[in-house]
Amino acid sequence: MSTLIVQKFGGTSVGTPERIKAVARRVAAERRGGADVVVVVSAMGHTTDELTKLAAAVTTDARTAHPRELDMLLTAGERITMALTAMAIRDCGIEAISLTGSQAAIITDGTHTGARIEEVRADRVRTELGRGAVVIVAGFQGVSRAREVTTLGRGGSDTTAVALGAALGADRCDIFTDVDGVYTADPRRVPDARVLRAVDFDDMVELAASGAQVMHPRAVEIGARFNVPIRVLSSFSDDTGGGTLITRRKGHMEELALTGLASAGGQAKVTIRGLPPSMAALTAIMTVLANAGVSVDTLAVADRADGRRQLQITIHESDIDRCVELCHEQVELLGGAAVDVQRGLSKVTLVGSGMTGLPGVYARSLEALLAAGVDVHAVGTSSVSISFLVDAAVEDQTLQSLHAAFDLAKETE
Amino acid sequence: MSTLIVQKFGGTSVGTPERIKAVARRVAAERRGGADVVVVVSAMGHTTDELTKLAAAVTTDARTAHPRELDMLLTAGERITMALTAMAIRDCGIEAISLTGSQAAIITDGTHTGARIEEVRADRVRTELGRGAVVIVAGFQGVSRAREVTTLGRGGSDTTAVALGAALGADRCDIFTDVDGVYTADPRRVPDARVLRAVDFDDMVELAASGAQVMHPRAVEIGARFNVPIRVLSSFSDDTGGGTLITRRKGHMEELALTGLASAGGQAKVTIRGLPPSMAALTAIMTVLANAGVSVDTLAVADRADGRRQLQITIHESDIDRCVELCHEQVELLGGAAVDVQRGLSKVTLVGSGMTGLPGVYARSLEALLAAGVDVHAVGTSSVSISFLVDAAVEDQTLQSLHAAFDLAKETE
Repeated sequence: MSTLIVQKFGGTSVGTPERIKAVARRVAAERRGGADVVVVVSAMGHTTDELTKLAAAVTTDARTAHPRELDMLLTAGERITMALTAMAIRDCGIEAISLTGSQAAIITDGTHTGARIEEVRADRVRTELGRGAVVIVAGFQGVSRAREVTTLGRGGSDTTAVALGAALGADRCDIFTDVDGVYTADPRRVPDARVLRAVDFDDMVELAASGAQVMHPRAVEIGARFNVPIRVLSSFSDDTGGGTLITRRKGHMEELALTGLASAGGQAKVTIRGLPPSMAALTAIMTVLANAGVSVDTLAVADRADGRRQLQITIHESDIDRCVELCHEQVELLGGAAVDVQRGLSKVTLVGSGMTGLPGVYARSLEALLAAGVDVHAVGTSSVSISFLVDAAVEDQTLQSLHAAFDLAKETE
Repeated sequence: MSTLIVQKFGGTSVGTPERIKAVARRVAAERRGGADVVVVVSAMGHTTDELTKLAAAVTTDARTAHPRELDMLLTAGERITMALTAMAIRDCGIEAISLTGSQAAIITDGTHTGARIEEVRADRVRTELGRGAVVIVAGFQGVSRAREVTTLGRGGSDTTAVALGAALGADRCDIFTDVDGVYTADPRRVPDARVLRAVDFDDMVELAASGAQVMHPRAVEIGARFNVPIRVLSSFSDDTGGGTLITRRKGHMEELALTGLASAGGQAKVTIRGLPPSMAALTAIMTVLANAGVSVDTLAVADRADGRRQLQITIHESDIDRCVELCHEQVELLGGAAVDVQRGLSKVTLVGSGMTGLPGVYARSLEALLAAGVDVHAVGTSSVSISFLVDAAVEDQTLQSLHAAFDLAKETE
């Protein structure tokens, strides 16, 4: 059986007719090499922004830009790219056919502008591959069981590509983007950051969720669940062997394996003091925030010697006003003392699935930050990461000192 | 049962966000008046041209711009307009939903870029109307039984509108355009031409087929076959009572009822002399031309006293080179004498279903043309029209003298 590769090209990679032709030449070369190829494309460059502006221009009330009609409008974007890409590939002498999300049977739930993929019925794609065609599938879009056109929301095209890879049992899913791969840290902030040759799925989910822009975590999660190796590489480089391979890594024994750093600005810390120490009070506050759509990142509870409880949460700055108003209401209702807010924070996350249960990581991190004069406002942890909440002004120093402390610039293996 | 109206808006009428909002206000007013409304829209202004340019830019060989992919590309155009129109109507406080040609079940044959509508399964449209929504349907596009996206070719959006009107049993189909209605002749050429209040279906088919640009004949033919009254009116005027109603007229007794004039330039006459007077020779020539895609408009055969036959055809100037080459080949094969070509001609057509069997029309026409000094190169007739082939230089004089000879400026009834 021949190799099957899914290749995804984002909006910048297909931003002009010239770039579409470059994509076509790359795909044609892969096909001539003998592989079956499925191509997933996003809308060209700024098409989505332009369509969104048109929607704003025809409505006086943004709420009338109905999610269903927005989806109908925006899906025109990939439709244009996929047809042009098919034409350009055919122009290279390779048979090609484009399919909408509906034709490729990307079945989603009915949540317009943010649908989840439920199933990919890849029969049509398989039939077209079987007759030797390169199949171009519109990214970002799907169809609900009620036959309504849906879009997948953020990270949609990556998600389409990896989901197709999973459904087809692809050997690999290539995500072409405008950077060279996944870095140990943002190279604009950490000058000696390097491209990782390989990353474990879990680490990549954590990096993506912690602010690494290169891929959306939901696409990586599908890759992890269905074990589809994902390669992230630049569409502007001819080095097809480069990039980062995201895959299931063979177990490491006791080695302290750290992968990289990610960071996200725009964070805020809200502290509610003097609460009664009951589960009921805690639950009430978290429920009120959830119902208001305030997304809480980290949560820490501290019980004081006087029997009162202190609750500390981190949220995105855009949610501050709503959050503080609701917290004040709850403080009145439940009997609390005060609500404090600290804005202008950044979250820096150190990722590495090898760190599990290794207390040395905390110590080495905090020593490095102390030496760099960085004050940490909060710490969060997961099984594969540690996050430090710091002032935005010292975000770069934090990244640089952690990058150095764990020797991330040095290639392992 | 409430009134059901289909309203079609062409590319100019939805060319900008402001115009889409004007369309929305008009539709909303019609809906508030109590009617059920289905709206058919074309792509915005020059969208189709821009998409076609993109297709040319990604291919070096125009033949690789596969018809299927061209259809996929171009249908993005109406998708954008229909979603924006739905949003704008909702913004007027009226419930609205947009449907693609596929969702509206405009079932066509599989001929990409020039599909024919086979059936309209209007259940979905009826359901949406039933819950009180204005339904916006993408013009120009359909879906084949193999679920491939197709486009209807020239006059496509008009055809969608009238076909939907037929399937739904609509009370009327309004075609909004950039002129005030159907004129007795082109007002740029005949200054006293006037807007017809009403035209019979047959006359309108003939006017449209003879060069009147206002509507495509295939849409009118569907209206005639299923008896859907069509109204042509300006989208830039607030006079909603105006325009031209195309309908089945009650029979006229013996009255000489002429409707109007249309004309088309770019015509040529090809004369083949000295042919053998056999059906075989005539058939051979017409078959060769048909196989080469040369569309023959009129055909006249004259047998001379010497037993040789002369064949005279009118074609479009763009077909001259192919046609002459093929005629020369046939003259050699069949034994003919010569092929003459006359270029730069225009066809002026006088239309009126009341003229059937009325020899007075020929006489009055030719007298008028003689008085105007117009030389006629050929005459063609149908049951509802007479066409005169004249030099393009005297097209306007021909139109004006016929317009005056039959008192077309004067309102009848």
